Amino acid sequence: MYRSHTCGELRLADKGKVISLAGWVQTVRKFGSITFVDLRDRYGITQLVFNESLNAQLDEQPLGREFVIQADGTVLERSNKNPNIPTGDIEIEVTAFTILNKSAVPPFTIQDDTDGGDDLRMKYRYLDLRRNAVKRNLELRYAVNRAARNYLHENNFMDIETPFLIKSTPEGARDFVVPSRMNPGQFYALPQSPQTFKQLLMVSGYDRYYQVVKCFRDEDLRADRQPEFTQIDCEMSFVRQEDILNMFEGMIKHIFKAVKGIEYTEAVQRMSWEEAMWMYGNDKPDIRFGMQLLNIKSAFTLNGEITAKGELLQGADFAVFNEAETVLAIAVPGIAEYTRKQVDELTEWVKRPQIGMKGLVYIRYNADGSVKSSVDKFYSEEQLRAIAEAAGAGKGDMVLILAGAEERTRKAISELRLEMGERLGMRKKDEFKLLWVLDFPLFEYAEDENRWVARHHPFTSPKPDHIPVMIGNNPVIEDAKHYLKHPYAQIKANAYDMVLNGNEIGGGSIRIFQRELQEKMFDALGMSKEEAQHKFGFLLGAFEYGAPPHGGIAFGFDRLCAILGGSESIRDFIAFPKNNSGRDVMLDAPSTIDQKQLDELKLEIRD
Amino acid sequence: MYRSHTCGELRLADKGKVISLAGWVQTVRKFGSITFVDLRDRYGITQLVFNESLNAQLDEQPLGREFVIQADGTVLERSNKNPNIPTGDIEIEVTAFTILNKSAVPPFTIQDDTDGGDDLRMKYRYLDLRRNAVKRNLELRYAVNRAARNYLHENNFMDIETPFLIKSTPEGARDFVVPSRMNPGQFYALPQSPQTFKQLLMVSGYDRYYQVVKCFRDEDLRADRQPEFTQIDCEMSFVRQEDILNMFEGMIKHIFKAVKGIEYTEAVQRMSWEEAMWMYGNDKPDIRFGMQLLNIKSAFTLNGEITAKGELLQGADFAVFNEAETVLAIAVPGIAEYTRKQVDELTEWVKRPQIGMKGLVYIRYNADGSVKSSVDKFYSEEQLRAIAEAAGAGKGDMVLILAGAEERTRKAISELRLEMGERLGMRKKDEFKLLWVLDFPLFEYAEDENRWVARHHPFTSPKPDHIPVMIGNNPVIEDAKHYLKHPYAQIKANAYDMVLNGNEIGGGSIRIFQRELQEKMFDALGMSKEEAQHKFGFLLGAFEYGAPPHGGIAFGFDRLCAILGGSESIRDFIAFPKNNSGRDVMLDAPSTIDQKQLDELKLEIRD
Repeated sequence: MYRSHTCGELRLADKGKVISLAGWVQTVRKFGSITFVDLRDRYGITQLVFNESLNAQLDEQPLGREFVIQADGTVLERSNKNPNIPTGDIEIEVTAFTILNKSAVPPFTIQDDTDGGDDLRMKYRYLDLRRNAVKRNLELRYAVNRAARNYLHENNFMDIETPFLIKSTPEGARDFVVPSRMNPGQFYALPQSPQTFKQLLMVSGYDRYYQVVKCFRDEDLRADRQPEFTQIDCEMSFVRQEDILNMFEGMIKHIFKAVKGIEYTEAVQRMSWEEAMWMYGNDKPDIRFGMQLLNIKSAFTLNGEITAKGELLQGADFAVFNEAETVLAIAVPGIAEYTRKQVDELTEWVKRPQIGMKGLVYIRYNADGSVKSSVDKFYSEEQLRAIAEAAGAGKGDMVLILAGAEERTRKAISELRLEMGERLGMRKKDEFKLLWVLDFPLFEYAEDENRWVARHHPFTSPKPDHIPVMIGNNPVIEDAKHYLKHPYAQIKANAYDMVLNGNEIGGGSIRIFQRELQEKMFDALGMSKEEAQHKFGFLLGAFEYGAPPHGGIAFGFDRLCAILGGSESIRDFIAFPKNNSGRDVMLDAPSTIDQKQLDELKLEIRD
Repeated sequence: MYRSHTCGELRLADKGKVISLAGWVQTVRKFGSITFVDLRDRYGITQLVFNESLNAQLDEQPLGREFVIQADGTVLERSNKNPNIPTGDIEIEVTAFTILNKSAVPPFTIQDDTDGGDDLRMKYRYLDLRRNAVKRNLELRYAVNRAARNYLHENNFMDIETPFLIKSTPEGARDFVVPSRMNPGQFYALPQSPQTFKQLLMVSGYDRYYQVVKCFRDEDLRADRQPEFTQIDCEMSFVRQEDILNMFEGMIKHIFKAVKGIEYTEAVQRMSWEEAMWMYGNDKPDIRFGMQLLNIKSAFTLNGEITAKGELLQGADFAVFNEAETVLAIAVPGIAEYTRKQVDELTEWVKRPQIGMKGLVYIRYNADGSVKSSVDKFYSEEQLRAIAEAAGAGKGDMVLILAGAEERTRKAISELRLEMGERLGMRKKDEFKLLWVLDFPLFEYAEDENRWVARHHPFTSPKPDHIPVMIGNNPVIEDAKHYLKHPYAQIKANAYDMVLNGNEIGGGSIRIFQRELQEKMFDALGMSKEEAQHKFGFLLGAFEYGAPPHGGIAFGFDRLCAILGGSESIRDFIAFPKNNSGRDVMLDAPSTIDQKQLDELKLEIRD
């Protein structure tokens, strides 16, 4: 060992010890004839003192930022203690030192508030990884990994590795493929998830499976998507949905406790997909704050039971509302005093192309009880107050109303709600609110192909009550315009998402485990019998030999870590991420390969 | 939950409890009006008793092998106890049952001694995985995984995930490549190991890294190689070779204890590569037994110190020995009584093409002290006894001698030694002997290209003493025939292998951490400056910014598990292995892909 201790280890109790440290030179400061060096390693920073006797060597071998040195010396009590670091009570009087390696001047400073831009830091990722901020993220990631594994192990789950070179069965996202040299013209695919393998393991009787595993999707990258990402992937047999919810609620709570020291003792709130859409406008609501939607007019209905409050608008001549498919409102607390300029700015905000609304209607519910609105001339103060109160506004609040086509408007008000929550400080980074969203639709309508696609994936089971609807109806959509009238649109799945602070961190379902139902599902998705057999024959075959009821869940590990770390960006929590074009700019990959490699693979690149 | 208990859980103490079980029907036996069913799950087998009252349902819904059922009932004490299974004292009197899923008759029996052939079991791998023998292997694999992680965690190692979509830098084995749709004509490669990434992490200061990680090599598959395999991959900074040996000796001992209950307290034996070659004829000797080589004549020398015993052959007119480059002997204990037929059979064994010797010379050292040999007419009894005794033979033993070209003969005697050890029961499956082999040559000579290749990999450091030899000499080999005279042939590396029972289970090295030396290494391997920069520019760059001294090791996880499980075949320890042509016969992968996929990748398949 080049060291007897780490740079984060020595304390006043070690005073007088003769020790060796090794690490990186963080700073060099000279006071008179004495040189002070902050030496850094993974564990901390320790101050080294080089006194006069070493000046000859220091002149000959000057130290610079990020030099790697080994120093022998004695632990002394510091006269000027530094209460900000754990080693701040001591310093090392250096008796001898060796430069193990020099460093060029780094292209950016290795500090929390570095002067390096994003591109530069990605190119020199190995230097960026030295920064405390990044190191803390990777430490958190490891802690989450460890906590998840420990919990699952305690609960009898087994880590079983599934293969990476599998078969291409694109359904949903695109596969990355891998040409086979030994089988020219044939390809492996990299797994988008180990879905079918974990189901096979259930058929094999392994009962409780987990893996922290890389998955691959060749998608056009949006911000904060990576072509390779990590899942905590789990599956259980002989369970019903309730068992899975309880098991994995337990896992997340265990992670909260182990990683963040948070005792999340309350039961995780649950909400149906329909309720989430109705009350928050999206399927992963941030429930750290209220500001629920008032559905004044809505094309969407909740359970067919609760209807929109269209009567609130009756008798007025405001064409925008009267003609809109959907009118939705939120009551934003405490902003009745917003200036005209602030309201104009909000209006511009909803008119941005990302939101796409034509305008914003407001109702101020002033502190004195009076009501003021941008649609004063169409509605009486009484009407406006009724709307405001139905939205949950009180004195001092302001109601914001959007109107337009159902899907866009619901999405827009959801974004506006989040934006207002953010502006008002209601989305606290250190507050964690979990939510189960349940009862997702089994199918989504794919307009371009006029067919059903699986909302979760083709292995998700319909709710038992809805199986007859699926079996008993022809999946073909005769009337594309009214696809919502097709019985399949009403089928709900035994599928569930776990939502944390408005982010989906995990999702899963109870699976189909009967061959006939799985075949019906492939049929419903427009897959021919031959295609189903070619792609998933192994799974259909497996279902003939005693498949148990089973279900599972997969957590997006990168995102989970990011949220626990209080960040929106998963890239900050990945040691070597790719950029938004899927490039590793440090490696300069992907890149061209040798003609010899192409020849061996019998491949040609088309111009 | 479909069950209150597992099939391996209930004991006499549970007598009287009302329980539910779920699992697979292992056997159905009918005695009179009573039906007995052995119900199996991951945890064990429990006997179910269906009495008359259920016969109507059983007639209507007959149970078959591998049916999945749920059964409710009461725990009873068994009259005929079965001491062979943990639940053998009890049985369940079934009050109600449900068939959760039927099963077709499996293509082979789900038993330890199955009637299924290899191909059939691979095709129906999900059924093969149900067999106890395979399940035990995967459980052992998980236990090893868990033990390794726990040990490394306790020792401050951090699991840090490295990318799978990297850059193709073929050097040694072939890369699997992945075409990039977003960058047409460019490819990612799948990692052969995370080597450069773990070194970058050391440059980043992460100090102690580990990963249990999939690696990929597109090689022509020999028996018991897989295109994807798993490594326990580790790296440490500020260490010398001794620190790494101690750390990972500790890890393996921890695994022995945790997984096999074995207290491996003795220090792991160490041997230089030269000693291993001299004494055992190969670099991964099985030291569970002796039978060391006598180097009578040898082109190879040990440390330049110990020379072969050529004098033992002097004065005789036996052309085979006199003309051979190498004559090697082993003394096989207790087989002096071998019949002529047995000796002939051994002779045939060494003449097989896999061994490739022209013949076998023997010396019987009879129990009465007399000596008898196939070369009696060339050597006196005194000479033969001297050879036998130099080989370590005593009364009752037989000396086996091979002669020929150095490399082939050494390999052959090594194989013969292992074969005799096997035949004599000296290679016990339940005995585990670890060995460190040290001081490997840094380079190997590649005859076809007349250049040096890295024996371990291009990042391995020469021994400090040998660095000047590397720096100070031109790597070009002027005289191909006498390449062994080139100074580079003498350079030894700070590289080490861990050997278990004659298998290399891990290997590693102290790494180069200076840019100049790394550049010299690339140069020594015949890589131009441009090529080195193109392939490894990121690493050379990283070495400019304060790279610490570091080293590491990688364990072949599949093989380690196989040896601990007492098997020679790694396939038995992989959930979903590929066959020897790299195919997954269950999935039928690799396979053709859609033209649309090829079009998107801008690829064409050459005829």
